[in-house]
Amino acid sequence: MNEILGNLDSLRTAMDNGEFDAIIAMSPENVPYTSGVGIWSQKVIRDRLALVVWPREGEPTLIVATNEEGYVREKSWITDVRAYSQHQDSPIKMLSDVLHEKGMGAGRIGIEPAYLTADYYLELLETMPEAKFGSCEPMLQQVRMIKTDAEIELLSRAATSTERALMATYSTARPGEKERDLVARLGANILQSGAELPSFLFFTVGPNTGYAHPDPTDIELQPNDVLKADCGGWYSGYFSDIGRTVVVGKATEEQHSIYNRLAEVHRKTIATMTPGVPASEVYRQNVDFYKEADIEFNLPFAGHGLGLYIHEMPMLAAMDDTPLAPNMVFAVETRVRWPGVQGFHIEDLVVIREDGPEIITKFMDTSRLMEL
Amino acid sequence: MNEILGNLDSLRTAMDNGEFDAIIAMSPENVPYTSGVGIWSQKVIRDRLALVVWPREGEPTLIVATNEEGYVREKSWITDVRAYSQHQDSPIKMLSDVLHEKGMGAGRIGIEPAYLTADYYLELLETMPEAKFGSCEPMLQQVRMIKTDAEIELLSRAATSTERALMATYSTARPGEKERDLVARLGANILQSGAELPSFLFFTVGPNTGYAHPDPTDIELQPNDVLKADCGGWYSGYFSDIGRTVVVGKATEEQHSIYNRLAEVHRKTIATMTPGVPASEVYRQNVDFYKEADIEFNLPFAGHGLGLYIHEMPMLAAMDDTPLAPNMVFAVETRVRWPGVQGFHIEDLVVIREDGPEIITKFMDTSRLMEL
Repeated sequence: MNEILGNLDSLRTAMDNGEFDAIIAMSPENVPYTSGVGIWSQKVIRDRLALVVWPREGEPTLIVATNEEGYVREKSWITDVRAYSQHQDSPIKMLSDVLHEKGMGAGRIGIEPAYLTADYYLELLETMPEAKFGSCEPMLQQVRMIKTDAEIELLSRAATSTERALMATYSTARPGEKERDLVARLGANILQSGAELPSFLFFTVGPNTGYAHPDPTDIELQPNDVLKADCGGWYSGYFSDIGRTVVVGKATEEQHSIYNRLAEVHRKTIATMTPGVPASEVYRQNVDFYKEADIEFNLPFAGHGLGLYIHEMPMLAAMDDTPLAPNMVFAVETRVRWPGVQGFHIEDLVVIREDGPEIITKFMDTSRLMEL
Repeated sequence: MNEILGNLDSLRTAMDNGEFDAIIAMSPENVPYTSGVGIWSQKVIRDRLALVVWPREGEPTLIVATNEEGYVREKSWITDVRAYSQHQDSPIKMLSDVLHEKGMGAGRIGIEPAYLTADYYLELLETMPEAKFGSCEPMLQQVRMIKTDAEIELLSRAATSTERALMATYSTARPGEKERDLVARLGANILQSGAELPSFLFFTVGPNTGYAHPDPTDIELQPNDVLKADCGGWYSGYFSDIGRTVVVGKATEEQHSIYNRLAEVHRKTIATMTPGVPASEVYRQNVDFYKEADIEFNLPFAGHGLGLYIHEMPMLAAMDDTPLAPNMVFAVETRVRWPGVQGFHIEDLVVIREDGPEIITKFMDTSRLMEL
């Protein structure tokens, strides 16, 4: 990520109206959002902190490990870059120095308590005893949940790329192949579709479709098996997240019946997603639609915001009363599973427009159970 | 992961000799280590906690979100599985209930403060005011850093699979290809080699080799370009991590000279890795070898333990005085980078044996700069 896709003006306004003298972006989503550079090691090396100090006034400062320094200096729009030597210097000490330098040693500082680990948090309290820390996560979530047109374009491209990669894999699946090899081919197709990396590859066969997130196995695809996908990749740092279910051969009447009812739940749920409707209301209606369709449902959400993180706000869940608004982007997922028996999953990218929901992922026909 | 590869007897002994009434495994490495089941969503959905309550006496309890319940019940050897509904119930509340049920409401409880986020940590303190919390990370690191033969076999298979995947990609690289497409092919080859997922794919071209972890670009491989890899995947939940550098065409005298000196640093560093030598001493000597070779070096480690996490203890770094011991496994990495100009990287899997280091990854000849 070498350009700013998000809405930094919106963040600046939130800072002006907010309680903080500075916020510290820390997570693999808020660091690239604010700095314009994705720091990949954040995703696998948890203790290698990257921090954006974003003051209410003045220029931000980016703190990274020396390992990442050269790239970050080249790619971020932030010019004040400081580097600490991991396993030798403390990033929290460097953060404290920067905040003191900006005159905020006793300031109101926003942090990310749902990302920062307890050990760093305790070190921060000890290092800056006079500062007052609070969570800036709600503020950043509010900013990030309304996508810019550039973000919507990228998320749409990512989603349709993944859907096509999935269709390419379905198109070449044949009985006798191992689940493990099908997963490998799906991953290869997602990479070839433009992702930097697949983020998750659940592509399950027959009885394994009854689970959400199993490891790939050596079981072989049999004629008339269900082949279920829940998969995605990172595209310029943004997630895709697509679900599809097909039968490789001929589906039973019962399978058609389950799928048709599930697709109906899916359609009806998306139809409720107009501006102004609370996210929790979408979930509540979704629960009703499952009941009407006589499909057991006990999962806690009907879908989730999607962007630089996989589960962004709003969550289409009972506890989230955020009203839907234009330029929100959701992965809406409708699914039923019988562990070790079979499962069905439909997941689409939905953009909220002034006049209602727009389904972006329409490359495959999901209105009926596809038989390959 | 459906079987126990790690050393649970060693963990039980550590518990017997340790200070805790119970420890809570929380991280994507300690949960599978103790439960025998990898919970993939832990890697991308940070707030969906999975917890193994491991008491000094009696049976462990596994707490997961309902989304993961079916699979976990099927695959884990732990029979006491409890499920909470994410976004509705609190996993910390459920943890507290389990600990109270086991008579440990005021017990000494080991947690992972380098994994648990500050918000959950504060909730835990509030929910269990009488318990005494400490870090069980050193104990778990001590147990995990001595690999079982089954773990070494898996890590060796993973590493050689990735090395072969890399060689396959090098073998087919041709001038005119985009960096992005080379990365995609490497990822596909890693998947085809048996990984569940690539974990990181840095495969850089020409000037981009001067960075550690850049995003893939559209720049095209030119004749005589350096093509540098630092990549890995997850194999049954365990990491591989391999680095290689080649020139696609003819290398300059200077490039040969840099590479030969770097390879000499690499060989000499690995040669120091005999049982009893402190990890910090390997680093200290590594720094000297760079100096002797007249190669600038300012990175904080010469390599790292490798297993279920990418940077396990011991770290070959100044602060880690752990003596090397048989059945430790390291990724030893030797590298030099000039940002935006060029870089070289050699990284191998090294197993510590009674009589010294064994290099596992020998499929490619890394003794001289390969010209393709």
